[in-house]
Amino acid sequence: MKTLVVDLGDRSYPINIGRHLLANPALLTEHVHGRQVLVVSNTTVAPLYLDAVAGMLSGFSMHSVILPDGEEYKTLDTLNTIFTALLENRFNRGCTLVALGGGVIGDITGFAAASYQRGVAFVQIPTTLLAQVDSSVGGKTGVNHPLGKNMIGAFHQPNCVLIDTDTLDTLDDRQLAAGLAEVIKYGLIKDSAFFAWLEQNMAALKQRDKQVLGYAIERSCALKAEIVAADERESGQRALLNLGHTFGHAIETGTGYGNWLHGEAVAAGMLMAADLSARHGWLSADAVQRTRTLLHNAGLPTSPPEEMDAGTFMNLMAVDKKVVDGGLRLVLLKEIGNAVVTGEFRQDLLAATLAGAA
Amino acid sequence: MKTLVVDLGDRSYPINIGRHLLANPALLTEHVHGRQVLVVSNTTVAPLYLDAVAGMLSGFSMHSVILPDGEEYKTLDTLNTIFTALLENRFNRGCTLVALGGGVIGDITGFAAASYQRGVAFVQIPTTLLAQVDSSVGGKTGVNHPLGKNMIGAFHQPNCVLIDTDTLDTLDDRQLAAGLAEVIKYGLIKDSAFFAWLEQNMAALKQRDKQVLGYAIERSCALKAEIVAADERESGQRALLNLGHTFGHAIETGTGYGNWLHGEAVAAGMLMAADLSARHGWLSADAVQRTRTLLHNAGLPTSPPEEMDAGTFMNLMAVDKKVVDGGLRLVLLKEIGNAVVTGEFRQDLLAATLAGAA
Repeated sequence: MKTLVVDLGDRSYPINIGRHLLANPALLTEHVHGRQVLVVSNTTVAPLYLDAVAGMLSGFSMHSVILPDGEEYKTLDTLNTIFTALLENRFNRGCTLVALGGGVIGDITGFAAASYQRGVAFVQIPTTLLAQVDSSVGGKTGVNHPLGKNMIGAFHQPNCVLIDTDTLDTLDDRQLAAGLAEVIKYGLIKDSAFFAWLEQNMAALKQRDKQVLGYAIERSCALKAEIVAADERESGQRALLNLGHTFGHAIETGTGYGNWLHGEAVAAGMLMAADLSARHGWLSADAVQRTRTLLHNAGLPTSPPEEMDAGTFMNLMAVDKKVVDGGLRLVLLKEIGNAVVTGEFRQDLLAATLAGAA
Repeated sequence: MKTLVVDLGDRSYPINIGRHLLANPALLTEHVHGRQVLVVSNTTVAPLYLDAVAGMLSGFSMHSVILPDGEEYKTLDTLNTIFTALLENRFNRGCTLVALGGGVIGDITGFAAASYQRGVAFVQIPTTLLAQVDSSVGGKTGVNHPLGKNMIGAFHQPNCVLIDTDTLDTLDDRQLAAGLAEVIKYGLIKDSAFFAWLEQNMAALKQRDKQVLGYAIERSCALKAEIVAADERESGQRALLNLGHTFGHAIETGTGYGNWLHGEAVAAGMLMAADLSARHGWLSADAVQRTRTLLHNAGLPTSPPEEMDAGTFMNLMAVDKKVVDGGLRLVLLKEIGNAVVTGEFRQDLLAATLAGAA
């Protein structure tokens, strides 16, 4: 087992990464506050891993809430079913929530923990690659609104992130690929050597080589932990983690939540960001091509849905969180491993990227 | 104008108290972030004061949301109408929300500000006595759940609290009395001299003498600011502010939100706490009688609703936030001006208080 630490002073917490971790109760129980524990999972993950987690929690008063599976259920209404379960079972302010599942479960459970009685403890047990390398680390929690993704939420750090890489055995290929999009993102924004390593090891990753996957997760978590520790509330460099996300969120909202996976939308969005960067003369054609090839080899889409035209993109992007006082800001690439957040891009080139992509 | 400061480091903010403040735009605009401002009010307050606040905000891009009036609308559904307005008008992360109204408007607007895009700025303009002396100060925000009051929320401090005491001219007598319950609370928990001052000045307060009301508001805000600065997240003494609230929340939930005003329920609850304290031999019969008389003279109820029996109380109190790992904790009185938070009370005496009260 590898342990990384997200260094946030008195809110610091460990990320434990390894195999067979769900067979080691202490890894969970040492981070549980109080005696009351609510495990939140979904109809896909609960049949696979809820028994194991329940086994780790013997001696606690455990309840569970099983939500329907999918981004389209990441809503205030679903959140309210968690509050109802907590209140029906008389959970007090000293309780702990456990998120067992992918990014949707982690985000919604984290927001429930942030808001229940104005804040209780929670633990992340991510079971998808995307959640393991990205959404379970850093304390961004929330739900979607029909008019925009992740528009309602809180910064609320977990007590611990427990990544049992054996849970990836039950992940389907499409979900694995979606997670690889976020792994590739770290290479693009901050680590060209990791990007090159991914180019060399993509076949092994697709074949789910545990050692190779383990390293990809560790490196991704280490890069994320470093960024979060430096800028917890995204006043600066944390925004780099949104590479491809402004375009990607527009794709997710525009196509209806759940039709494109988040990682798929981010993959197409990262290539749009690469394309726009190249149109400014910042990124070479070769770098764009390497990015396209790596995403393609990961099994990810490299262009947005055909039905989305430039006008639809612009409308949806206008409510993005990176809009500051009317001006859209985008994460763009100066080179592989070097991203910038900027409002200094040409509107005509953005229009060309949106038109060319559609 | 008097200015108090809630001292919370880089989240410190002023409480401005005085007459004609809504005629002074700078008092508001110097605390507005960005150019986009959403004013949230209700159908009672908006016709009276929205034009004045809009006048203060000339030069800003202002929108408003007018909610129905009443505690029964302090829900996740109502919260969502605020998010919808923010997104429809493309409000970004640099915007400011303004709460114009009583405690319900302040709590729900504050929680909207805490949650929109994971946190934006807000300003409190409380227009009821209760909101001016209590709920607008200290950053407790939230909404109710059918199973418990204020069970969903966040700690999120405003940028400023603007108390124009002239707004009390339009408050009805019942709402004024409800506010006096919280004023009396400060005397009971922390300031016996203030309690004695209230005994001497209750008639003038009921007659809305502006100078006397102004002092009561100032003193209440000063006591609250002192407690909040010492214990923002209620790990200790801030819980004293909940005197009467565990009983009171049970009354509000048990009778259906909106039938008893919050201050009315707190008044009955404070007398129940005084009664229970006396049964332990902590509080003298004379002190209980002084409390009863002062609440009565303020025009407040001094006993809970007849339809609530001891069993109903116990059920509703079991989910109260002051329950720590299964044990109920109550705020009780050692003497007037000296309250304690304690789980060390006798169950038989609690049962006697609940039975005797009903």
